[in-house]
Amino acid sequence: MNRRMVLYVLCLIMRVEAVLLVPPLVIALVQREEMAAFGFLVAIAALLGASLLTLLKKPRKKVFYAREGFIIVALAWFVVSVFGALPFWVSGAIPNFIDSLFETVSGFTTTGASILTDVEAVPMSLLYWRSFTHWLGGMGVLVFVLAIMPLAKNSGNTMHILRAESPGPQVDKLVPRMHNSAKILYAIYVGMTLLQIVLLLAGGMPVFESVTTAFGTAGTGGFSVLNDSMASFSPYLQSVVTVFMVLFGINFNIFFLVIMREYYKILRNEELWVYLGLLFGSIILITINVLPMFASVGESFHHAAFQVASIMTTTGFATVDFNMWPQLSRTILVILMVLGACAGSTGGGIKTARVVLLGKSFVRDVRKLLRPRSVALIKMNDRTVEEDTVRGVHSYLTAYILIALISVLLISINNFSLETTVTSVVSCMNNIGPGLDLVGPMGNYAAFSGFSKLVLSADMLIGRLEIFPMLMLLVPATWKAR
Amino acid sequence: MNRRMVLYVLCLIMRVEAVLLVPPLVIALVQREEMAAFGFLVAIAALLGASLLTLLKKPRKKVFYAREGFIIVALAWFVVSVFGALPFWVSGAIPNFIDSLFETVSGFTTTGASILTDVEAVPMSLLYWRSFTHWLGGMGVLVFVLAIMPLAKNSGNTMHILRAESPGPQVDKLVPRMHNSAKILYAIYVGMTLLQIVLLLAGGMPVFESVTTAFGTAGTGGFSVLNDSMASFSPYLQSVVTVFMVLFGINFNIFFLVIMREYYKILRNEELWVYLGLLFGSIILITINVLPMFASVGESFHHAAFQVASIMTTTGFATVDFNMWPQLSRTILVILMVLGACAGSTGGGIKTARVVLLGKSFVRDVRKLLRPRSVALIKMNDRTVEEDTVRGVHSYLTAYILIALISVLLISINNFSLETTVTSVVSCMNNIGPGLDLVGPMGNYAAFSGFSKLVLSADMLIGRLEIFPMLMLLVPATWKAR
Repeated sequence: MNRRMVLYVLCLIMRVEAVLLVPPLVIALVQREEMAAFGFLVAIAALLGASLLTLLKKPRKKVFYAREGFIIVALAWFVVSVFGALPFWVSGAIPNFIDSLFETVSGFTTTGASILTDVEAVPMSLLYWRSFTHWLGGMGVLVFVLAIMPLAKNSGNTMHILRAESPGPQVDKLVPRMHNSAKILYAIYVGMTLLQIVLLLAGGMPVFESVTTAFGTAGTGGFSVLNDSMASFSPYLQSVVTVFMVLFGINFNIFFLVIMREYYKILRNEELWVYLGLLFGSIILITINVLPMFASVGESFHHAAFQVASIMTTTGFATVDFNMWPQLSRTILVILMVLGACAGSTGGGIKTARVVLLGKSFVRDVRKLLRPRSVALIKMNDRTVEEDTVRGVHSYLTAYILIALISVLLISINNFSLETTVTSVVSCMNNIGPGLDLVGPMGNYAAFSGFSKLVLSADMLIGRLEIFPMLMLLVPATWKAR
Repeated sequence: MNRRMVLYVLCLIMRVEAVLLVPPLVIALVQREEMAAFGFLVAIAALLGASLLTLLKKPRKKVFYAREGFIIVALAWFVVSVFGALPFWVSGAIPNFIDSLFETVSGFTTTGASILTDVEAVPMSLLYWRSFTHWLGGMGVLVFVLAIMPLAKNSGNTMHILRAESPGPQVDKLVPRMHNSAKILYAIYVGMTLLQIVLLLAGGMPVFESVTTAFGTAGTGGFSVLNDSMASFSPYLQSVVTVFMVLFGINFNIFFLVIMREYYKILRNEELWVYLGLLFGSIILITINVLPMFASVGESFHHAAFQVASIMTTTGFATVDFNMWPQLSRTILVILMVLGACAGSTGGGIKTARVVLLGKSFVRDVRKLLRPRSVALIKMNDRTVEEDTVRGVHSYLTAYILIALISVLLISINNFSLETTVTSVVSCMNNIGPGLDLVGPMGNYAAFSGFSKLVLSADMLIGRLEIFPMLMLLVPATWKAR
């Protein structure tokens, strides 16, 4: 591995983070939040200090491959979270460092799981930084899945699926063409965020809430600046959030196709229609199931739509306490947690594209049982899917289950209910935020042990980076110089 | 499909079942249980009557292939359960037919899930029949997995694993060599059952309890004739059951190897050692975890061993209410429920051999990420595993998860807790019996709706027959004549 190059890029990222900490520092100074301002200053100083490491050894070769790409991504999320946690810790807003780290990992991974029992007591500048991590994380994920993952094209790894499903801005070598596609993605991302802020302001939401809510929606994060999440907002504002959650859960290549006016390709995109089908199917089932709890069908639909969109896109906002809903609705939500949003979106979970492929491969297997000698190819979006890709998705599922089981075992030590134990892991691994029972939408992760919080932080990172890059960090061979 | 041949074999099986109903009829007559005797008579008459169907059309060709084998097995389990339920229903012991069917499917699939709230109130002859279904089901499974499944060898289906792991009595064509291997299997099965009965009698257990307990152990079923399962028996008797549960969870080919004195092959059998490793690892963890609940380490170990053996082998007996244990122990038990026993045993679950292959395939995938061009073959028991087999196991996992998710959704309609909902499905699909919460070891399935009982009965059959044969029944193409 080109270790110097990895270090070089990481130091660059640290400097960028230092710059990004300036706006919250300004807010802290304006709002006279002295402790918070001190926290941001310490973080900025630490980042700049640490980034001086690059002065020691400059990279001789600037070339790097898929492996370096994965390692940088995996380390970047970790490094950025550790430094990003400093303001919370130093300012005393979150006195425990593990708690601060959990909150920041939750932010950057766009999870939205919180250990805060009273969000409203936290200084404004820190809340801004907390929500901003979602927005940055979402942007990072887009670049990761649409620019870095396709690098692995020829490396026989198990994540082809995302490349296979990228009809949009494809990047073959990171350095040469990266800039263009990244620019397009950023433009869409920034544009949609701004549009949401405008629509929220139009509905009478204060500026601070509008901006932070849009950050949380764009990154499919879910941190709110209010203790009751979105419950106190007007139906109009909740509906705006519902629509934007659904949009940010769509593969960004679809938006690219919209810009290119290739509507035919959108119509043929199976992932999109399965995503929307699951979304509306779930909304209808839940609307019927929770009907007795609301005054009208309209109200029932409104809240069902919000909660389904929030969970399936792995955002995690809530307008009602769905932990109190009937079991059928709760089960549907838990299943949606695992399925997640579209590949190539800011959402987490197993991803709709993988679910579609798993379903198709299942149908093929049953058919093959009857016609053993038939050669059945799997097609998606009118194109034949390589067997390697199908195999890769099955591997992904296995890895996913294995890590989930180990995590559930480790979280069990807390001796919480099975529901809390399982849904906390599911929620963190799929970057959602809320689960059921103790970690329901009106609950939080404060009661978990420090060890559990570290396990769940690891789950958030593993889930966010689609498992394998994080596993690579653990394999000694990764670190060999070349 | 050779439909006449399928019908012919089914009618043969019905006649066998009629004969097997004679011993419980005799017990009913001796014990003067008139209603039960009437129930058995009705069942025998119905079976003999229905089996006259063969007189209508005799099969022209007696040849049949894997497809016919699977269909016969799938239909046989269903038909045998429907007729086997008649004595419970007609005698009035279980007034509802769906309940009677659930109890009988639970028996033949060696699950052991019960809707009876007071087992001790049921007439002796019916309890004998109930436990006897376990023993018959276990025998049927052995023939199925060791004789019929290998038929699919050349048919490209997804269940190679069991063939791959059968170093013992292999059967290539059902008719010619079936008799020999079946005889050996039956001899081992009968011999071990008799040995257990003798050891239980030696410990002072009454004859009726000894026989029914041995039936439940041999089939890894779990029906008990007492309301508190095994709690009231002496530690010696409980230990005998523990040891035999572990034995009946081992691949029967291992016993075949013991008879052949091929000890070297046993030492090299990875599935066996992983099975024993998981078993003892879990026992030790749980022993420590439940230590505060018992008087001594010995007692803690004794109950941990019993419950772990019971759950992992998918038997389902209990000496204590493990539903009250700390969450870590409960989580371990739920995970063991899914893992299950060895392939080629009477136990259910995903099977240790599949778990080993999934683990190896996972390790290979992580390695491949680092060395993309490496050709890494998976080895098991010193032999290279075909890629088709690896693919088959991944397909199995996908199908398993898909069916489990659909079942959990359907069971959610009951509006029980998530714990009850999920563990009832897990327990039935893996043919265990008890789950947690409402269906804990001291609970039962009485509170479930009729629809839920049918769903869970289907899960028991699907799990027992390793998913794909049951799915074949649903595909129209299966039924085409040829």
